[in-house]
Amino acid sequence: MDLLEKKILEEGTVIGSEILKVDSFLNHQIDVSLANEMGKEIYAHFKNSNVNKILTVEASGIGLACIVAQYFNCKVVFAKKSKTRQLTDDLYCANVHSFTHGDDNIIRVSKKYIDSQDTVLILDDFLAMGEAVNGMMDIVKQAGAKLAGVAIAIEKGFQGGGDKLRAQGIDLYSLAIVDRMSENGIQFRK
Amino acid sequence: MDLLEKKILEEGTVIGSEILKVDSFLNHQIDVSLANEMGKEIYAHFKNSNVNKILTVEASGIGLACIVAQYFNCKVVFAKKSKTRQLTDDLYCANVHSFTHGDDNIIRVSKKYIDSQDTVLILDDFLAMGEAVNGMMDIVKQAGAKLAGVAIAIEKGFQGGGDKLRAQGIDLYSLAIVDRMSENGIQFRK
Repeated sequence: MDLLEKKILEEGTVIGSEILKVDSFLNHQIDVSLANEMGKEIYAHFKNSNVNKILTVEASGIGLACIVAQYFNCKVVFAKKSKTRQLTDDLYCANVHSFTHGDDNIIRVSKKYIDSQDTVLILDDFLAMGEAVNGMMDIVKQAGAKLAGVAIAIEKGFQGGGDKLRAQGIDLYSLAIVDRMSENGIQFRK
Repeated sequence: MDLLEKKILEEGTVIGSEILKVDSFLNHQIDVSLANEMGKEIYAHFKNSNVNKILTVEASGIGLACIVAQYFNCKVVFAKKSKTRQLTDDLYCANVHSFTHGDDNIIRVSKKYIDSQDTVLILDDFLAMGEAVNGMMDIVKQAGAKLAGVAIAIEKGFQGGGDKLRAQGIDLYSLAIVDRMSENGIQFRK
């Protein structure tokens, strides 16, 4: 998606070999106009997939998921990372290792909000090694729901998670795929 | 807001004396259509306040904030609770005690995303004792920005945080104010 690639080149910062900082528009400040353009692209790709629910994980995916859900006219469910006093229902749980934060998280979704009648689009802001997406796919499978596919804003292609999903036949649609990056520049997959 | 009060009565569950569980539409699953109706109401209230940025805190406020921001045609900034490797800028920090979770959090906003030119609307899904809003107000003050007001989906009026803000002259707009609740029923402020 040209508009997103342009924004990444203009405002993104590469830190070290693995961190692409895009917090001016995606995951700290959110450019809601850009998110709407991303929503249109994601809808165009998945519009015939009968998506009736978008699943993301807190926190950075939630804003984009809500904007995108407007195009599908569907609800959003966000998996929770913390077990709060409010999460008292029967839960689907999956383990997610975060290479970014260097820790493990259990993500949780109430069984009330995804079931075998659902066709789920998994959405996240970033895809790197694919751990969060794998955790969400595990939850979709536990629910007996259908997986429509996976929508990602920025895939760090060089970390391999995306290509592993493609090799499994998953319909993965990443709006921008970074194949190489360093402090000297960013190269997108064409 | 009648539509929200109706939804709370239909789908909300009171647990003990303090927890109102509305995770079917607000803070686990998100009903994006309802969020849009909430956005219209919040915009109607604050449309003359020159809001150019909405500040919320992860995670539950983010979805509603992004939907509401579309009406103001502005960006969203969400304060972060964890210090990640990506948050390397100069930061505004404030301490927030959570009575719900029984812990303290430092919330953080990069100084790049709020400054003295901004007129900020603070938004959150719930207002109870007012700790999160006070933390965000502290950040707005540190930034030298103007505070347009505070928009809340559900205020638990009986916990007093909202009335303390009103006593300070803050333009607090809560779409539903619960004055009393128990397992036998919920009573809204008129």
